[in-house]
Amino acid sequence: MSPGDLLPGPRVLLGPGPSMADPRVLRAMSTPLLGQFDPEFTAIMNEVVELTRFAFQTGAARAFPVPGTGRAGLEAALTSLIEPGDRAIVAECGRFGLLLIEIAERCGAEVSAVRSDWGRLVDEDALETALKAAKTKLVAVVHGETSTGVLQPLAGITRLAHDHGALVVADCVVTLGGCDVGVDRWDVDVAIAGTQKCLSCPSGLAPIAYNARADAVIRGRRTKVASNYLDLGQLADYWSPARFNHHTAPTAMVYGLREALRAVREEGLEARFARHRLHGDALRAGLEALGLALFGKQSSEHRLPFLTPVVVPDGIDELRVRRRLIEDFGVEIGAAFGPLQGKIWRIGTMGYSARRQFVLQCLAALENVLRREGHRAPAGAGVDAAHAHYTAADAGPRDIADNLGATGIGRL
Amino acid sequence: MSPGDLLPGPRVLLGPGPSMADPRVLRAMSTPLLGQFDPEFTAIMNEVVELTRFAFQTGAARAFPVPGTGRAGLEAALTSLIEPGDRAIVAECGRFGLLLIEIAERCGAEVSAVRSDWGRLVDEDALETALKAAKTKLVAVVHGETSTGVLQPLAGITRLAHDHGALVVADCVVTLGGCDVGVDRWDVDVAIAGTQKCLSCPSGLAPIAYNARADAVIRGRRTKVASNYLDLGQLADYWSPARFNHHTAPTAMVYGLREALRAVREEGLEARFARHRLHGDALRAGLEALGLALFGKQSSEHRLPFLTPVVVPDGIDELRVRRRLIEDFGVEIGAAFGPLQGKIWRIGTMGYSARRQFVLQCLAALENVLRREGHRAPAGAGVDAAHAHYTAADAGPRDIADNLGATGIGRL
Repeated sequence: MSPGDLLPGPRVLLGPGPSMADPRVLRAMSTPLLGQFDPEFTAIMNEVVELTRFAFQTGAARAFPVPGTGRAGLEAALTSLIEPGDRAIVAECGRFGLLLIEIAERCGAEVSAVRSDWGRLVDEDALETALKAAKTKLVAVVHGETSTGVLQPLAGITRLAHDHGALVVADCVVTLGGCDVGVDRWDVDVAIAGTQKCLSCPSGLAPIAYNARADAVIRGRRTKVASNYLDLGQLADYWSPARFNHHTAPTAMVYGLREALRAVREEGLEARFARHRLHGDALRAGLEALGLALFGKQSSEHRLPFLTPVVVPDGIDELRVRRRLIEDFGVEIGAAFGPLQGKIWRIGTMGYSARRQFVLQCLAALENVLRREGHRAPAGAGVDAAHAHYTAADAGPRDIADNLGATGIGRL
Repeated sequence: MSPGDLLPGPRVLLGPGPSMADPRVLRAMSTPLLGQFDPEFTAIMNEVVELTRFAFQTGAARAFPVPGTGRAGLEAALTSLIEPGDRAIVAECGRFGLLLIEIAERCGAEVSAVRSDWGRLVDEDALETALKAAKTKLVAVVHGETSTGVLQPLAGITRLAHDHGALVVADCVVTLGGCDVGVDRWDVDVAIAGTQKCLSCPSGLAPIAYNARADAVIRGRRTKVASNYLDLGQLADYWSPARFNHHTAPTAMVYGLREALRAVREEGLEARFARHRLHGDALRAGLEALGLALFGKQSSEHRLPFLTPVVVPDGIDELRVRRRLIEDFGVEIGAAFGPLQGKIWRIGTMGYSARRQFVLQCLAALENVLRREGHRAPAGAGVDAAHAHYTAADAGPRDIADNLGATGIGRL
């Protein structure tokens, strides 16, 4: 027997990704296909290039989506830049720093890891020491460490790296479209994003932007890239007017990404970042009112506004809480990795999921489930605190409130 | 200014891929997302595994989609099997044989190419000689050579390879879902497909199936795979009950592939193959009636039923013909690669595009455009010949006619 119709239950996706897909993105993805060299399709590709530059705030030489998930974009960058034996420094303070180490090693790099405890920022002194120790091809760093909720400033790192002749590759998978990613302002050489986080497009493409320095390094390699599929030189040629044949464009995903980036552009970067802050802050106010502790000691400027790690209270079965949230309320929140597994939840309010009704649904559901697990909080405390935050924000500076009103999203 | 709404012109896609996406697949792709470890989503993954086995006609140990286009699937197979210095024999008689050589070389293989002229079958005697020359890890071969329209029998090649202790990796990107791909019957160790050909799902996933022998080779490697993203061992673990975390599943693409494979299962393999033969044969009858010569000297059993190479008549500007077909009729046919560029067109009747109305539209449009370019044929000759073929087929063996009627597609 063939499986039946695809009829998944409705979900409020508040994990670390995928976030809820924007319905306008899903509609765009169901558009009938064009051939990949059809002038109408190549025009769409050119629009995607420009929208990608806009989102990354860059005039970068190269900007296009790598045809795979965020991880494919990271690997494309590292495998295209690194030649066997090159030294790469990876700043590691979470799961995705570990991933960069693993990928860089597979690319044949001599990897030097600059490690901090999970939940901390990169130790720039240790980075400088590592840079001084030997000639380094690149520094790889995670901008938004989804495993810990830490937002890593990049300007200091790029300055240090460039002082020592190294390129900077930044994992912006979770940050693009949700908070400031100032590729040119911070002089990041290669920035890679994902679609399924703050862009609210299904997973499957990895927008990348890289500057002329990185492009020259890729073009000047002495050895061939070990991958054909993830060879940025070939991908760039396919996405350039040369239009050299490579993979068959994942048409529906390109349609979806275009629509997601258009939504970013229409909302405006500042308004969009403000919306992510607003709903993240409301969520955090609610969580604290429920007697839950936020994980991490960073000040708010070094925390991801839209990915909130929460400490699982003593004596609570974290898996059962997540299961009940899904089964009773259709609300998904995230588990954690490695040393944090079982100790924290991660609650995402990214892209389309950054919306008042979802924040309130989450807090109401969580209060109910936690109560049944034995964790007491004043009835309605989470929702009330979030409400109070929204009310205070409405009374706040006019420009932000206006922007939120204009998008029709902030107040809904 | 932000680009406008996504409103591409309607197209009849009769190139070498993408074929037209089945509307039911596009609808499935616009389904709201589930989290990737949601029990409802892992159940969908399990269904995709079973449907993939069905399509490949295999009980293979491993069957799942690689998260990239067909090319990603080919690279995943080669990079996961080959360790640096391993010998790989690649049978090359077209563009996609060349691609296998290039990928295998990038994976660090010592590649021995067994070449035939484009448009020919693999020379099995030369393959045997190459196998005898040195210990060989694998033989890579293209099942359906999209660049030439040749359908390569695989059973003889797997027998030879296995006699010499080599695995067989088969590029079935264009054949899966369109003609017989008997993975178990032919003892193919690794078979890779694409979604955008006879499955009529947008490009972006590469269904793969491999047997226990290949699995053991991957598990028994002495060196790490050079890729994390395309490491079949890791991908298999993610698609197994172990559910080890890897990339974020490209949810919408998985939805689309599930629906595409469901459509294959509902239609039935024999009926689906017969439909592809029927419409390909009707097209070919029409093309010949227009005075066009089919490219290639293979008998019909060694030709792709759904990808027809046609010789560009002397004195005709092939690019202008394709451009007029798109501009005036919205009909896309394909150009060619390498030594065949400018000399042949390639007309695909794959998946949803394998439909009477599209065949007739193509023949009517082509007749008109060719006449304006100075190529004369009796008015209506192409459409008439296709009609005659359909009428004869309707009067043919009952079982096929019944199947076509039952699907509601054959006669439409």
